[in-house]
Amino acid sequence: MEIALALAKKGAGKVNPNPMVGAVIVKDGKVIAEGYHEEYGKSHAEVNAFNNALEDVRGATMYVTLEPCSHYGKTPPCVEKIIEKKISRVVIGMVDPNPIVRGQGIEKLLSQGIEVVTGVLEEKCKKLNEVFIKYITLKKPFVIMKTAMSIDGKIATSSGESKWITKEESRKQVHKLRNEVSAIMVGVNTVIKDDPELTCRIENGKNPIRIIVDSTLRIPRDSKVIKGANEVKTIIACTEKLNNEKGLELKKQGVEILLTKSKNNRVDLDDLMTKLGEMNIDSLLLEGGSTLNFSALEEGIVDKIQVYIATKIIGGENSKTPVGGKGIENLKDVFKIENMNLSLIGQDIFIEGYIK
Amino acid sequence: MEIALALAKKGAGKVNPNPMVGAVIVKDGKVIAEGYHEEYGKSHAEVNAFNNALEDVRGATMYVTLEPCSHYGKTPPCVEKIIEKKISRVVIGMVDPNPIVRGQGIEKLLSQGIEVVTGVLEEKCKKLNEVFIKYITLKKPFVIMKTAMSIDGKIATSSGESKWITKEESRKQVHKLRNEVSAIMVGVNTVIKDDPELTCRIENGKNPIRIIVDSTLRIPRDSKVIKGANEVKTIIACTEKLNNEKGLELKKQGVEILLTKSKNNRVDLDDLMTKLGEMNIDSLLLEGGSTLNFSALEEGIVDKIQVYIATKIIGGENSKTPVGGKGIENLKDVFKIENMNLSLIGQDIFIEGYIK
Repeated sequence: MEIALALAKKGAGKVNPNPMVGAVIVKDGKVIAEGYHEEYGKSHAEVNAFNNALEDVRGATMYVTLEPCSHYGKTPPCVEKIIEKKISRVVIGMVDPNPIVRGQGIEKLLSQGIEVVTGVLEEKCKKLNEVFIKYITLKKPFVIMKTAMSIDGKIATSSGESKWITKEESRKQVHKLRNEVSAIMVGVNTVIKDDPELTCRIENGKNPIRIIVDSTLRIPRDSKVIKGANEVKTIIACTEKLNNEKGLELKKQGVEILLTKSKNNRVDLDDLMTKLGEMNIDSLLLEGGSTLNFSALEEGIVDKIQVYIATKIIGGENSKTPVGGKGIENLKDVFKIENMNLSLIGQDIFIEGYIK
Repeated sequence: MEIALALAKKGAGKVNPNPMVGAVIVKDGKVIAEGYHEEYGKSHAEVNAFNNALEDVRGATMYVTLEPCSHYGKTPPCVEKIIEKKISRVVIGMVDPNPIVRGQGIEKLLSQGIEVVTGVLEEKCKKLNEVFIKYITLKKPFVIMKTAMSIDGKIATSSGESKWITKEESRKQVHKLRNEVSAIMVGVNTVIKDDPELTCRIENGKNPIRIIVDSTLRIPRDSKVIKGANEVKTIIACTEKLNNEKGLELKKQGVEILLTKSKNNRVDLDDLMTKLGEMNIDSLLLEGGSTLNFSALEEGIVDKIQVYIATKIIGGENSKTPVGGKGIENLKDVFKIENMNLSLIGQDIFIEGYIK
């Protein structure tokens, strides 16, 4: 299963909104085939494993990170292939959370007399596909809030300087993540202040769709994200009616305008997530700023948080912090983080956890 | 030397402003004596080891974390005792940074034909006595800035609630540190806002001297630190002339008033450190708040920083952060932290490092 997991990971950033899946076929204690889901729309891990088999797979055991599918999607159901190939035992990491599968694949296998073991390295398999689990069950993107701050919680100096607080190694990891998610989202204030490109700067990397939350279309027309909108898909989420000049101009520049419900005169983030889900966006990296981060937490759209901490002190009563807005009043109401992971990335500290 | 280090640590909080020292005597590959400096003014580690010896120490090797002293202080010089006891080899952790020793102990031993090895586990020995090293060379206290914040860098909610952000385990560790330092320091705003006791709440713990930085004597006379000033030594550092009523009243309540130079109309923290050093205060725990923390960093009095991070998000544009004040303007000028250590204390994250 560890091998299958490692194989599955190779599909990161290429299979969305499908899950990453890896499969290994073992016969007489020997690995005779490996496969993984390589690209969205292409064949599943199980089929790839069969195609890569070095010998006859009859009577063999298949290890697969996710329950094999039982439905016709872009490809025929994998369970039928497994039955046809006369696999005698299937070891499964996790049940498919997809409502149209959820256990039916396993049932079908069992009904054909195939031995099935489930829940092997289940936690790891679930973590690998946390994006898919959320997306397939709620049809909304899995949201990762990422922030980089000094050890005293500042994302910029008192004069607003923010490039760069963390070291290159941390920033590289962020670009790796940008390569894996479907979309990246910032507030319009970040565009006005930092004029970022929001692209993935790794070799052969894939740019995520750029989403700017800009309720009243304040975005400067000469900002980098607008000027590059013909190369990288760029969506502006707003609440304004769009028969205005600026909206039309932006559309001409290649920007897609997405109208959402309004909440407190701002973009209703939950409605935005629903609409992005409908556009097959399964994962979204939220990169601030501080006001949008608080709104996102408040509206409950954030699943995971990633904090990079530089071993520096910036200070400043008015320096920006990662999460602003009006903030929580009572300690009992704060957002709690669970399943926290802590590591060092070069000289920076990296904390990852899930919003409870 | 590891045993000697462990022994030395037993003196934590009891030997200030002396160093913690441990000594072990080994003969024929067997530990025949152990000793440590147990209390300020009492006998040194070496002498205690001799007193605890199970057999004749002649020809044995002594392991000692710090160079044995060569001067008459509160006790006679240890080197003479070592010579007299006919120890044949002395293994030393670190040279004594005390200007009146610094190598002279070693020279004396060598001149008597005793073999000397130095620098064994030197880094550990230096870390153990980081307080002593600063104090004996600069005659100012070693300052540890401690702060507890949420993962988004807040020390209180938007309404000012701050009890408690971190978990009990972290707070216990802080009380353990309070037991070991000579003094604890806060700004008057913290007293006005939180009315803390600033005592050490561990069994048989020792209360550090409480120092309140209060340039213009704004402290409320009914605050806990004032009301308890007869039980726990309490010093108010201010710049005001004290022939005023409030100063006299405070003195009557048992508070000691310490006049310092003024810097930007505030207590000159560097001058305060010099004065505290003269009072034999070798170590000081700085517990905020946010304005005093920035001033302390700016004036260069902070040696070490300890940050407890709770896995919570508080948010709030106006919520207090660990380091406030006017802050640093340019990223190139920020305070850098080195020799950082990272650990988990229950559910909290603990970061420790040194100001560069």
